[in-house]
Amino acid sequence: MPLRSDYDGQNCSLARSLEVVGERWTLLILRDLFFGVRRFTDLQAHLDIPRAVLSGRLAALVEEGIVERRPYRPGRDELLLTERGVELWHVVFRLIQWGDRHYGAEGGPLRVFTHAACGTALGESGRCSTCAIEPPPDDVEMHPGPGVPAVRRDDAVSRALRGPHRLLTPLAG
Amino acid sequence: MPLRSDYDGQNCSLARSLEVVGERWTLLILRDLFFGVRRFTDLQAHLDIPRAVLSGRLAALVEEGIVERRPYRPGRDELLLTERGVELWHVVFRLIQWGDRHYGAEGGPLRVFTHAACGTALGESGRCSTCAIEPPPDDVEMHPGPGVPAVRRDDAVSRALRGPHRLLTPLAG
Repeated sequence: MPLRSDYDGQNCSLARSLEVVGERWTLLILRDLFFGVRRFTDLQAHLDIPRAVLSGRLAALVEEGIVERRPYRPGRDELLLTERGVELWHVVFRLIQWGDRHYGAEGGPLRVFTHAACGTALGESGRCSTCAIEPPPDDVEMHPGPGVPAVRRDDAVSRALRGPHRLLTPLAG
Repeated sequence: MPLRSDYDGQNCSLARSLEVVGERWTLLILRDLFFGVRRFTDLQAHLDIPRAVLSGRLAALVEEGIVERRPYRPGRDELLLTERGVELWHVVFRLIQWGDRHYGAEGGPLRVFTHAACGTALGESGRCSTCAIEPPPDDVEMHPGPGVPAVRRDDAVSRALRGPHRLLTPLAG
């Protein structure tokens, strides 16, 4: 049997999911869209990613129905997560939690997530222990955590995220 | 500022996590280790992955403390998830759920997961609604679901997974 270099031999839906979101950079792009970034130039500056790579990844995400483009003024589109895209929140959230635990700053997490409706910090599972629910991302607020580095990045997105910010709402500025 | 082609500019722990688990194939390897696959040759046959690629990915996972090698007889090692690796269960589980929803077989999921202690099927969040807990993977049982294809794969791992199987326990055969 010939060896394959792709996932064709895998009938698991995880394999198919990874074809879609398992590309280098893709989950970071999704993370930024959850944070409220909506413009190509902001994504590019915040992720510090080559323009062609970002373009290609976004085209694939649009093709897969995970991201949609919506005109916000003539000739200019903004980028939004679709419902299918929003459903990936827990994958992104769990990876952030795992990363904080094993690769985070010594002072603690870079970002803390709370249930916007009641202010309770979300547990590692993404649940609000006060309300006993798993709030959807548009009911989650992100706050700078104790692990914020002393030397801060100075792009527009990093500046806008220095205060509390509700996920999926557009960034100020 | 020069454009970067890697994640160095990202001080988010998600970026670091993706350096570790975001490589093509890596989450599929982790999935198989959760399923109880412990031998290189079984992984290779089940994933249908080039030997050199599998070798490289495993070496990186061992290096990162996610997988450990343990001799099971002279000159032979088996592969096990470490505690750090086991913590990735929810990332894998959520991606499987998302994939089933959007790319799954028409008949339903390929695999169904239950809480081994009580038999309740886990919800999409990975919680057991009967016990109101999120069971760890060694307390989760996997069953063939309605989406199992008529034409089945015939490697040793696929055969061993035709019946119920508790995660993280070695496969029969």
